[in-house]
Amino acid sequence: MVRVKVPATTANFGSGFDCLGAALGLYNYIEMDFAKTDEIEVMGEGEKTVEKNKTNLVYKAASRVFDEVGISKPIKISLENNIPIARGLGSSAACIAGGLVAANQILGEPLPFSRIVELATQMEGHPDNVVPALFGGFTISMVYEGKVIYKRFSIPNWLRFVVGIPQFSIRTIDARRVIPEKIDFSDAIFNLSRCAMLVASFAKNELSNLDVFCQDKLHQPYRNKLVPGMEKIIKTSKQQGAMACFLSGAGPSVLTITSEENAKKLGIQMVDIFKKEGIKAQYKILSPCDSGVEYIQKSF
Amino acid sequence: MVRVKVPATTANFGSGFDCLGAALGLYNYIEMDFAKTDEIEVMGEGEKTVEKNKTNLVYKAASRVFDEVGISKPIKISLENNIPIARGLGSSAACIAGGLVAANQILGEPLPFSRIVELATQMEGHPDNVVPALFGGFTISMVYEGKVIYKRFSIPNWLRFVVGIPQFSIRTIDARRVIPEKIDFSDAIFNLSRCAMLVASFAKNELSNLDVFCQDKLHQPYRNKLVPGMEKIIKTSKQQGAMACFLSGAGPSVLTITSEENAKKLGIQMVDIFKKEGIKAQYKILSPCDSGVEYIQKSF
Repeated sequence: MVRVKVPATTANFGSGFDCLGAALGLYNYIEMDFAKTDEIEVMGEGEKTVEKNKTNLVYKAASRVFDEVGISKPIKISLENNIPIARGLGSSAACIAGGLVAANQILGEPLPFSRIVELATQMEGHPDNVVPALFGGFTISMVYEGKVIYKRFSIPNWLRFVVGIPQFSIRTIDARRVIPEKIDFSDAIFNLSRCAMLVASFAKNELSNLDVFCQDKLHQPYRNKLVPGMEKIIKTSKQQGAMACFLSGAGPSVLTITSEENAKKLGIQMVDIFKKEGIKAQYKILSPCDSGVEYIQKSF
Repeated sequence: MVRVKVPATTANFGSGFDCLGAALGLYNYIEMDFAKTDEIEVMGEGEKTVEKNKTNLVYKAASRVFDEVGISKPIKISLENNIPIARGLGSSAACIAGGLVAANQILGEPLPFSRIVELATQMEGHPDNVVPALFGGFTISMVYEGKVIYKRFSIPNWLRFVVGIPQFSIRTIDARRVIPEKIDFSDAIFNLSRCAMLVASFAKNELSNLDVFCQDKLHQPYRNKLVPGMEKIIKTSKQQGAMACFLSGAGPSVLTITSEENAKKLGIQMVDIFKKEGIKAQYKILSPCDSGVEYIQKSF
C-alpha cells in the first residue's frame, strides 16, 4: 500500500498565462493498493459526484503507468479530497500527478520521474499545474517539441495564499473561449515585462512590487464576466494589505498573496464581495507547498 | 577631470521585447572637465558625423545634470567611442548614461544614483538599454507610474557575445513602425513562457535550452525584411555551436551567444551570410560586462 499527498496548485499567477504556477498547502491524499477487483472510494470534495469507475481520473492515471509498464492488476484506490473541483485550484492536475506517482510507487518505481512529468503533462494537456503539483514551489514550465521544460524556485514560507472560492465551477474550455485570437501588441508587452519581473522576484526573494508584477491584460479582462466580483476583489485587495491578487488558473477562485496577519481580513472581504454579487463563497488560508507530491506512507 | 567607461548593451535578448537587456564588453570612454568654453572632441566611432555642439548627446546628458543641480559652467568633453552608432548596440544609451554619470561625478555626486537612472530613462525614452549600461549584467526593466523598476543577474564570464554588425543603420522609429498593432494571442504566449524561462536561466545559472528561450515571435519576424540575412544567421547559428542567436535591440546587428572556442567561426559565418545579401559587415567578439558604467579616473 502506498499513500501519497499531492498539493493544490494555482496557474497563470497573474501575468504568467500558461507558464507560471505555484503549489499551495492544500492536499489530496491518495491511497493505492493491489486488490482482487478494482475498487474506488472517495471522501471529501466530490465524494458524491466523482466517478468511481474506470473514468475516475486517478484510476486513469494509474492505468497509464500500468499500461506503460505492461502490468495488469486490479487496484483499490481511496481518495481523501480536500482540493475543490473545477475551481481553478488544480484538482485534476493533483489527481493525475498523484495517480501516476502512486501507481509508479506501488510497482517499485519502474518509470523515471521525468517520464511521470511527461505523462502528467500529456494527460492534463499542459504543464502549468502538473509541474508545481509534482515539484512544489513557484514554477515556470513550457512544452518544446513534445518535451516538458521547467524550472522552480522556493516560495518564502511566511507567505500566505488566501483563496476565495465561489460556489460555482468553470470549465477550462469555456474560460478559454472568451479569450480573443488577436490582441493588442501593447497588451502582450504589458504582461511580458511583468512576468519577467515576477520570475526575477522569486529568484531573488525580493517581493516588493508583486502587485505590479502580477497585473495581467491577457486573460483576466476577458474572464471578468465569468467571475462577477473578481475585478473588485483585485482592485480593493491592496488597501487591505494584499501583496498581489489574481484569478487562480481559469477561475473562478481568486487568490491573494499576503502575510499571516492580513490573511483572515482579506478572506472575509473576498467572501463579502462575492456575496454582494449574489455568489456564495468560502475562503481558505494556505501556506506555500515547497515539496510537491510526497509519499507519506508505504508498506507492502 | 573625470574619466568614465560605459558599456555597449543589447536589448530585447530574443524573447524579452522592451524588458530584457545585457551589458557587453565594448566601451565608450568619456572624459569631462571644467573649461573656459564648451568644447567637445570625438575620436573613434562617429568622429566625423557626431555633433560637436550643444546637440551632442553626452553634452545634453551632462547639461541635464547641471540644470537639475542649478549650476552653469562650461565643460570640455572628450569622447573615445568604440560602440558603433545606430546598430542596435546601445550607443545612445551609453552616451546618455555616461554623460549623466560623468557630470554628476564632476559636480561631487549631488544626485543619487536612483535619480541618474530616472534621468537616463527619460532621455532615452525606455529603460532597457540604459539599465544594463548603468548596472551591467543581464537585466529586466520596466517603467511603472513614471518609476523605473529593474532587477539584474550576473552573466557567467566565460560566455561570449559575437556581434555581427552590418554597415548600415536602422533608426529605432523605423524598426518600430513595422510591428503591427494587433498580434496573435498565441504569439504573445509564445514569448511569455520563453522570456520567463530566460530570466530563470540567468537567475539559476542554468544555460541549457537558451536557443529555445531566446526564440521570438513579437518583433524579429517583422524586422526580418529590414535586416536581410538575419533569419538565415539565426537558423544556421546553432549548427556552428551557438547557444542562442537574436537581433540586437532594433537591429541591424545580430548577436550570437557562444563559448570562446566557437566565437570566431560564428563571427566569420555571420559576415559571410551578410555578404551574400550584398551587405558589408564586421564582427566583434565581446565578453559580458558585469559592472556597468565605471569611473576609471578622477582628478581635480
